[in-house]
Amino acid sequence: MSDRLPGYNGRVRDLLEKLGARVGCRIRATLIGGNILIEGLLMPKHEFSAPDTIIVKLGNGYNIGVSIDRILNIEVSECTSVPPRGSGGMQIDTAHSLPTVKIIGCGGTIASRVEYETGAVKPAMTPSDLLDLIPELAEFARYDSEILFNILSEDMTPKHWETIARSVYRAISSGVEGIVITHGTDTMSFTASALAFALRNLPFPITLVGSQRSSDRPSADAALNLIAAVITTLKAPFGEVVVVMHSTPSDSSALVHRGVKVRKMHSSRRDAFQSINDLPLAKIDLHKKEIALINSRCIPRSGGKEEVMASVGFDDRIALVKAYPGFQNEIIDFLVDKKFHGIVIEGTGLGHIGSYALDSIRRAIEEGIPVVMTVQTLFGRINMNVYTTGRKLLEMGVIPGDDMLPETAYVKLSWVAAQTRDIRIIREMMMTNYVNEVNPVHTPQHFLKPFAE
Amino acid sequence: MSDRLPGYNGRVRDLLEKLGARVGCRIRATLIGGNILIEGLLMPKHEFSAPDTIIVKLGNGYNIGVSIDRILNIEVSECTSVPPRGSGGMQIDTAHSLPTVKIIGCGGTIASRVEYETGAVKPAMTPSDLLDLIPELAEFARYDSEILFNILSEDMTPKHWETIARSVYRAISSGVEGIVITHGTDTMSFTASALAFALRNLPFPITLVGSQRSSDRPSADAALNLIAAVITTLKAPFGEVVVVMHSTPSDSSALVHRGVKVRKMHSSRRDAFQSINDLPLAKIDLHKKEIALINSRCIPRSGGKEEVMASVGFDDRIALVKAYPGFQNEIIDFLVDKKFHGIVIEGTGLGHIGSYALDSIRRAIEEGIPVVMTVQTLFGRINMNVYTTGRKLLEMGVIPGDDMLPETAYVKLSWVAAQTRDIRIIREMMMTNYVNEVNPVHTPQHFLKPFAE
Repeated sequence: MSDRLPGYNGRVRDLLEKLGARVGCRIRATLIGGNILIEGLLMPKHEFSAPDTIIVKLGNGYNIGVSIDRILNIEVSECTSVPPRGSGGMQIDTAHSLPTVKIIGCGGTIASRVEYETGAVKPAMTPSDLLDLIPELAEFARYDSEILFNILSEDMTPKHWETIARSVYRAISSGVEGIVITHGTDTMSFTASALAFALRNLPFPITLVGSQRSSDRPSADAALNLIAAVITTLKAPFGEVVVVMHSTPSDSSALVHRGVKVRKMHSSRRDAFQSINDLPLAKIDLHKKEIALINSRCIPRSGGKEEVMASVGFDDRIALVKAYPGFQNEIIDFLVDKKFHGIVIEGTGLGHIGSYALDSIRRAIEEGIPVVMTVQTLFGRINMNVYTTGRKLLEMGVIPGDDMLPETAYVKLSWVAAQTRDIRIIREMMMTNYVNEVNPVHTPQHFLKPFAE
Repeated sequence: MSDRLPGYNGRVRDLLEKLGARVGCRIRATLIGGNILIEGLLMPKHEFSAPDTIIVKLGNGYNIGVSIDRILNIEVSECTSVPPRGSGGMQIDTAHSLPTVKIIGCGGTIASRVEYETGAVKPAMTPSDLLDLIPELAEFARYDSEILFNILSEDMTPKHWETIARSVYRAISSGVEGIVITHGTDTMSFTASALAFALRNLPFPITLVGSQRSSDRPSADAALNLIAAVITTLKAPFGEVVVVMHSTPSDSSALVHRGVKVRKMHSSRRDAFQSINDLPLAKIDLHKKEIALINSRCIPRSGGKEEVMASVGFDDRIALVKAYPGFQNEIIDFLVDKKFHGIVIEGTGLGHIGSYALDSIRRAIEEGIPVVMTVQTLFGRINMNVYTTGRKLLEMGVIPGDDMLPETAYVKLSWVAAQTRDIRIIREMMMTNYVNEVNPVHTPQHFLKPFAE
């Protein structure tokens, strides 16, 4: 029989065994020196946890480590039927009537632990470990998990996008009823865009989910984000690639953002992810575990797995270049000399760059390198008809990126350039709105709410 | 005697002369076919205006062009004493008891007109023209105007920053009591940062102001922004370089943003400028024409013009480079080969870049090129102690940019590198908080208000 108290050793294990506790049991503990009552589910313990502690998942979704030396009184009740689990790509059965969700692990903080010696966060957790930490997931689905790779998300490349897209395609073909991808948050929106272009006509939403705190920390947001991601992939009416993350610093709700319209807008806040130039698609009430549609402009689920259109290649010779005062046009010249396959510019204002750079851009286009213009303001859209510089850029063949995020345009050009090197077709594809990466109508709701309002 | 109806010809001029009207008079006109009443001040007319129209400044600050063929009835009353004006760097007297404000023209939309043949916006207006358009300015100050250059702001370079800084320094030394710089909005925040570093211990705020609509358009925001900028430079208690722009799409108020903490966040909205990781310094009530301090963390006015510290040089061999999945480290190698003087990276998350680029960054630092890390999330701050990649970057000598905007860090490194090429001193200066370019404490108010709240 497998261990019912995985990770617990010494006198903590002795205590728990004496109480008849196992992982998944409800624990009530009163702490020394006050009225503090800890109540929640007993969690497995991992190698990096402090010794002589038990790990309890509180009602708010957070894990807390409690030193047994602080415990005055402890009770065990309601042991659920969730079995303890091993690690690595195994299939996990919970109830046969439930749908199957595939969890694809790509690393990131959601799959990482604090290394207590150094305080640094290191990738260490498998999807199965995550399921161990969040027994509530068992009520929604059976899970099938695969660790594709375990890297920090700044190390993602277009090649990784291809690997993830292939894995998602295989999972859809295998007949699962939902897919959740755990991913580092740094570049999660890039991967979300990549999957959105690579796989269309989806039978259910592909949800990317991460966390801003490592999953073994008391303040981890991983649990609620994962629950929201599972609810989304199973219940949402749309068939899009989405990012599911906390909507506010509190734990009451998560937002479902369209993958091609979302951006990490804060380095550390739990509600760092924000839809730009678009509304979130839906909101997940984490108390009621219900989904509410916010944005009716969404792509419905396709008829089934047979309808999926896949084009999973990405070109890794695209550059994303920012315009700034004094921008050195030799940077463009270098990209042309090195025969890059495309350039996305984060232009100023409505889509500009210093006129001293125009000759270099003209040369790029003449040599068959597509140049796409986007707005570094992030909010708003390209309009190159208003000012002289914009008109000149349009005349020489620069492709206007409309209201696409620079990051989305970068991913899209990488996807397009992997399919064709014909600059006319590239232009046409870049100006085709495939998966709502362009929002034709902006309302005041699409802008950040300014301070003064 | 100079023309009292500048720009008016033909039958429009005949009508206005018959009525005894001159520029500055109050006009009440009823239009044909409805109850529409136009009431406001008669404005001068410019070469690009449609023929047979009169230009009226409405109470809300906007100019409107009214075809005389639509006018049913017209009355003239209350002709103010504001004289019509010529164009170009002349001194304009209004009342001798008023303080003197210097207006320095650097081009941009605020100094541009729509070219009606093409629909394009072209730079065409002098500061004097602007004063013509906004007679209300006369109640606050006497104005001295200088056209430094008339370019679109995407053409600004570090050399232009030097020219502007010298002009501001000369103006302060000459004893003016306020300075307003009209500037294109695309790169206005870069110039604001440049001036903030170049000129410290200021006796009054240096206000940069622009508009998102050309000044001769009915929806121009130029008038109210300029009035707010004049109020700020004259009345605000702080001595900082600030950007003054609309706070909301309506005309009720303007916000005063710290130059090193502001960013253009929308390509076209009038409230495009937003403070990032900081609160605006003050709010201008455009009805009461009063200033209200919002942010108490500000640098007070210095004792006088003698105390100004000037260091107006900028290095134009700094690159601002964005990290993205698949970032090609050969771009860093190129900057090192070309002996750039510094590199600012817009890193992902807490300050990361793909680990495949670390060798190139190490080489840059070994060759004496400072590398500064900032966050592409814009909101939040660098923390390179959390993850392995960040620690490696810190160990090799990458300079953490704290919560500085990437654009501000770029300008600051340009300013620092113009003073020293000693990488240790550069590091020390980059980590010195000169003009509140770093905000040590963030509160929830400093983040954009997310959709869900």
